[in-house]
Amino acid sequence: MKEYLKHHEWKIIEEGLDPHTNKVSESVFSIGNGRMGQRANFEEEYSGDTLRGSYVAGVYYPDKTRVGWWKNGYPEYFAKVLNAPSWIGIRVTVENQKLDLAKCQVEDFTRVLDMKIGLLSRSFTATFADGKKIRVASRRFCSMAHGEIGAIRYAIMPLNFSSKATLSIHVDANVVNMDSNYDEKFWEEVHREASAGRAIVTAQTKKTLFHVTTGMCYSILVDGKKIKLDRVNIEQREKFAGNVIQLNFQEGKELVVYKYAAVLSSENHPKDQLVSRCNEVLDEASSAGFSALFAAHEKVWARKWEECDITIEGDVAAQQGIRFNIFQLMQTYTGDDERLNIGPKGFTGEKYGGSTYWDTEAYCIPFYLGTAEQKVARNLLVYRYKHLPKAIENAQKLGFRDGAAFYPFVTMNGEECHNEWEITFEEIHRTSAMAYAMRDYIDYTGDEAYLTAHGLEVLIGISRFWAQRVNWSSDKNKYVILGVTGPNEYENNVNNNWYTNYLGAWTLRFTQKAIAYVKNADSKRYAEIVSKVNFQEKAETEKWKDIVAKMYYPEDPKRGVILQQDGFLDKELLRVSDLNPKDRPINQKWSWDRILRSCFIKQADVLQGLYLFEDDFDVEVIRKNFDFYEPMTVHESSLSPCVHAILASKLGYKQLAYEFYLRTARLDLDDYNNDTEEGCHITSMAGTWMSVVKGFGGMRVRNGKLYFNPFIPDQWKSYSFRIEFRGRVIMVKVSIEGAQTILESGAPLEIILNDESRMLN
Amino acid sequence: MKEYLKHHEWKIIEEGLDPHTNKVSESVFSIGNGRMGQRANFEEEYSGDTLRGSYVAGVYYPDKTRVGWWKNGYPEYFAKVLNAPSWIGIRVTVENQKLDLAKCQVEDFTRVLDMKIGLLSRSFTATFADGKKIRVASRRFCSMAHGEIGAIRYAIMPLNFSSKATLSIHVDANVVNMDSNYDEKFWEEVHREASAGRAIVTAQTKKTLFHVTTGMCYSILVDGKKIKLDRVNIEQREKFAGNVIQLNFQEGKELVVYKYAAVLSSENHPKDQLVSRCNEVLDEASSAGFSALFAAHEKVWARKWEECDITIEGDVAAQQGIRFNIFQLMQTYTGDDERLNIGPKGFTGEKYGGSTYWDTEAYCIPFYLGTAEQKVARNLLVYRYKHLPKAIENAQKLGFRDGAAFYPFVTMNGEECHNEWEITFEEIHRTSAMAYAMRDYIDYTGDEAYLTAHGLEVLIGISRFWAQRVNWSSDKNKYVILGVTGPNEYENNVNNNWYTNYLGAWTLRFTQKAIAYVKNADSKRYAEIVSKVNFQEKAETEKWKDIVAKMYYPEDPKRGVILQQDGFLDKELLRVSDLNPKDRPINQKWSWDRILRSCFIKQADVLQGLYLFEDDFDVEVIRKNFDFYEPMTVHESSLSPCVHAILASKLGYKQLAYEFYLRTARLDLDDYNNDTEEGCHITSMAGTWMSVVKGFGGMRVRNGKLYFNPFIPDQWKSYSFRIEFRGRVIMVKVSIEGAQTILESGAPLEIILNDESRMLN
Repeated sequence: MKEYLKHHEWKIIEEGLDPHTNKVSESVFSIGNGRMGQRANFEEEYSGDTLRGSYVAGVYYPDKTRVGWWKNGYPEYFAKVLNAPSWIGIRVTVENQKLDLAKCQVEDFTRVLDMKIGLLSRSFTATFADGKKIRVASRRFCSMAHGEIGAIRYAIMPLNFSSKATLSIHVDANVVNMDSNYDEKFWEEVHREASAGRAIVTAQTKKTLFHVTTGMCYSILVDGKKIKLDRVNIEQREKFAGNVIQLNFQEGKELVVYKYAAVLSSENHPKDQLVSRCNEVLDEASSAGFSALFAAHEKVWARKWEECDITIEGDVAAQQGIRFNIFQLMQTYTGDDERLNIGPKGFTGEKYGGSTYWDTEAYCIPFYLGTAEQKVARNLLVYRYKHLPKAIENAQKLGFRDGAAFYPFVTMNGEECHNEWEITFEEIHRTSAMAYAMRDYIDYTGDEAYLTAHGLEVLIGISRFWAQRVNWSSDKNKYVILGVTGPNEYENNVNNNWYTNYLGAWTLRFTQKAIAYVKNADSKRYAEIVSKVNFQEKAETEKWKDIVAKMYYPEDPKRGVILQQDGFLDKELLRVSDLNPKDRPINQKWSWDRILRSCFIKQADVLQGLYLFEDDFDVEVIRKNFDFYEPMTVHESSLSPCVHAILASKLGYKQLAYEFYLRTARLDLDDYNNDTEEGCHITSMAGTWMSVVKGFGGMRVRNGKLYFNPFIPDQWKSYSFRIEFRGRVIMVKVSIEGAQTILESGAPLEIILNDESRMLN
Repeated sequence: MKEYLKHHEWKIIEEGLDPHTNKVSESVFSIGNGRMGQRANFEEEYSGDTLRGSYVAGVYYPDKTRVGWWKNGYPEYFAKVLNAPSWIGIRVTVENQKLDLAKCQVEDFTRVLDMKIGLLSRSFTATFADGKKIRVASRRFCSMAHGEIGAIRYAIMPLNFSSKATLSIHVDANVVNMDSNYDEKFWEEVHREASAGRAIVTAQTKKTLFHVTTGMCYSILVDGKKIKLDRVNIEQREKFAGNVIQLNFQEGKELVVYKYAAVLSSENHPKDQLVSRCNEVLDEASSAGFSALFAAHEKVWARKWEECDITIEGDVAAQQGIRFNIFQLMQTYTGDDERLNIGPKGFTGEKYGGSTYWDTEAYCIPFYLGTAEQKVARNLLVYRYKHLPKAIENAQKLGFRDGAAFYPFVTMNGEECHNEWEITFEEIHRTSAMAYAMRDYIDYTGDEAYLTAHGLEVLIGISRFWAQRVNWSSDKNKYVILGVTGPNEYENNVNNNWYTNYLGAWTLRFTQKAIAYVKNADSKRYAEIVSKVNFQEKAETEKWKDIVAKMYYPEDPKRGVILQQDGFLDKELLRVSDLNPKDRPINQKWSWDRILRSCFIKQADVLQGLYLFEDDFDVEVIRKNFDFYEPMTVHESSLSPCVHAILASKLGYKQLAYEFYLRTARLDLDDYNNDTEEGCHITSMAGTWMSVVKGFGGMRVRNGKLYFNPFIPDQWKSYSFRIEFRGRVIMVKVSIEGAQTILESGAPLEIILNDESRMLN
């Protein structure tokens, strides 16, 4: 855990450059706009520790890396998120001395991310070896108004000298991925052009052949006036194009570079038109200018914040945390492009391949349900509906038959693209995340007709999977599910993971309800589905009922707790608090086998199950399990603390709920798990939102009604959030005095606040 | 299973070229000499399905491929067995038509491996598109007398034409591995030279920087007379060097190419002298000539066969099988170079990395004990003793302390170099294979002093590993071993694998005996070891005793069988005979998760344990377990059938024993597991030897005495084998009439034959 960032309600602020935390800051201060984004790398050269990373949505490389290649059913490839060409480069040389913050003396360094307006700023004073001092102030944004445009204002003030200087302004496709085998490169040059004032490189990815065209143009002002550049050299080499400009620095006169970038992908344009369109976008950007571009960008952010800000009074760290989470989610996924999804690192890093995980269904859909129009969540469901044929293929590869659907653990296009067998083959609960998200969506929106249009087909496929995946144990006289990995990925290939068994059986029940609904609502469509998927209703549902009735659930009657899996009690049952802090995080300090045989839990899946199905259990059952599992949970999954925050809230563990909230909200800001340098944990940020709304706010939807059961942490004066619900916008304000619910728009609505019905008008 | 090879006592014979089995034949007909070897590829071009493979002992590439790279303790690299430069190439062109057996019409094709003399021959008649016919006969060997020399006699007879022709004779380092990611190359050229009559290429491996120099020279005879070559062109390109010779084919006149190759590795010569030494070796080979080289080679084989032939009368398939196994073992490992070990594919393929597996200790050492001087087995033990510091380091990487030794699952140099966590982290039984091999060695040779010299240090290290690896289950009130993979690799990350628990506890007992021995035999040396390894005798052995006393062993009292692991009875208990033949081998037809949750067993580790510790168990216990596990065993590990053959022999299941014998002996000849095309299963061939000697021959050593309890399969008239035992050579002959034991050399010896003592004089 690192706590070096200043607390501020709207800004992330770093004061002083620390080479040891630079990569963490590069992640935290990342900016993006749903189409592209980049880590908060410096525009100028930096020879210190850095992970230079730019990313373009949807662009990946199918790495064939396999281990245990004889394992049948192995995915064809691992979809690497690719580090893409960089457009930020501005290199400064003063009398043969490079501006490099690892080599110059640096004072007054600040890096600021203003989340309210989506602007990354940085300023510092640098002293070269010969004593020359310059002051630099840069501002950068990826336009939310125009997804293909980025812009930089880079100001240099020579403080104690006048001299000749050189600027190199360029685009650069010579980039590597951090996990490439011996620095293998994934981009090849397709086209390059450079003239005075402009440069463009088109690079294509190996194998997948995505084309990305990255262009830049610029203007330079001194003392607010555009200057004429008469000594411009073209700088070109493979995958690199730019200008080198010779000019004079004058003491006390500010020189400002405005650099405009255009990033276009063949996902959005014909390949043969990329360069000409890039030129058009550059023309558009440079003629609009920095201020106008920024004004449009700022406007989009203002609207977004109006829709989904959460305010917290009395606790700046908590306020900063929730806004950071919301900010990152909004700049990762805008909901505009139905081909995209919410990558686990967004545009902040390249660890983890692929773009779509069960995180989307389990964590992000509730967020978008509460903060965006209904169609955003619906589109995310339809995205998976479109992948159903691939999910059926995926199941076939693993030996399932008759239309069983097994959704991939990680995907770019519906195909499985992750490469650990214990995850892709065995972490099977994810296929039912699709079913649970439907339930969530229908409960929230009332749009049960989704089942008719798309949902039922998916549900039948998933239920067929479960019906084939269980087996009968004559020893136990029950159905069992062997060889799985639960959400607690610190156990692999276990038998009877309770979460998995419960979710599987629940899916079979839910599908039967869906059948009944569709049959009744639209018998013609039902017949169509039956015929399309060759559904043997009687035989199949009878089997499902039998499984539901005879499913095995491991438990410890002595302690009165659910057992995470068979054999769990053979472990040494220790507490996280007994661990030597030097051993944490255990995933960085312990070998994998040691983690697997320890009792320590990455993400407590028994508790995850109790959270998802809370109404099936008495609160005292939940309490006993929480008290048993919580002390063994190391929360090294970013998806873990938010669920604990919600459960702790429910159980009245106020202080604990607050601690879990801070942990999820400030996971990256304070680098809890010592891994933020690799990128931020984007999808779990939706969990942070849930921990306020469902945790402190106690929001639930039951039988179409909105419930709130709020409390306020002792550390706070008040908090507020807005909810979109069935055409209404409801503002919830909670203070020490009590809770207010205000209907901001939409028709009157009955809600239940603290177990009492009230009409909102 | 494929049965296309002709049965013959000394030869492997293929008649007719079948493109579908060519790769299987390339494996089966492989030749080698302990230093180098190669698959039975054709000298000429072949555009059909082929796996061209040449291999040089000790040469590997450290592939950094990882999956799940965040798993701490992950090996640094996967040691790929590298396909090495090829020296066999002789390409024939007749009037612009290439000799390519995939394109010509081929008649009278035969490929013969004469195991008695280590000679690969091939002959065929090929008809070109224009009707020209040639008869080709080639012979090739890797000299057993001179490990750096290979030779080819390649004879061409134009049958129905005279014309100009071209020969290309060369060496070629443009080779790829079958499992390289997108055909990545692992060799770089260091040096190349070619002159009329000679060509040499030195290539180095990436990263490991091994140099291998491959040279060739040749002479050409027509009608038995060396001809003068006046049209020789040098053919050179990167990593390739040779001659192109223009000459005249004359109808009915045999043209013979004698090609001599020298293969030198920087493991055996200074890098800067490789080329000059290569020239010397080529001079030596060409001046000796093919016949003299071959005579020396044949002589070595004659001596080897005298030492360890096994004869079987009345069953040619069985006879051929055992000789094939012995032949392959002898050409893989000669025992001359103590840096080498017995790679699982020898020189026949590149699947599986590394060179040393527990196969060496569990399977090969018994073979070398029985067939070679004592020092060969002892050297194999010392090889592991030298790796002890690396085994301690390996344990440290996984979090073990205080001198615990964890031997790698796969190694080239003592470091772990395999990359599946479920194997490298979890298949922990292998570390005790070192202890068991010591027991085997001492029982067989009586050389208990090995413990003093080397053994005890290793045993203490291994025992420390086990003492840390167990944990106390308060639920079971026993010590348990969680998260392991047993020899049955069709289960991963299971709890309380019986074999592992038993072997671990046995090791702790054996080490205590070894301590007592060394203390008594050489107290000074004992004190030295205690100090060297900082051994806390009292505290450590007390812990060991407690573990031995309270180890948990899973069992099913109802069935009276040992349980392979906890939870085994939750599986659907099916029989292999109920499987659809289309589903086999299951490792090629089923996904990994399906295999894991099925009851089917790759290699029955309960039976492996009962075999290793047979004297600890009543024969009826062994029978019950055999009857329970055997029907679930698919024998998809090559190490499996031999153990079953030995146990079936012991239990009096004669027909079954015979079937298992054939399965292990003819595993590759008949391609039982549909994987021989990737290479032969070399180490398990030692198991074939054991299934005759320990199975049918019933040989055991107990308390320093040799026991035989032979029977003869109904299909056989007689069989015989020779045993080296404590300075004697004993011939055992078994026929329908009974068994004879003859002392061929050495001092008189008391043995026990069929429970009766007899003196051999």
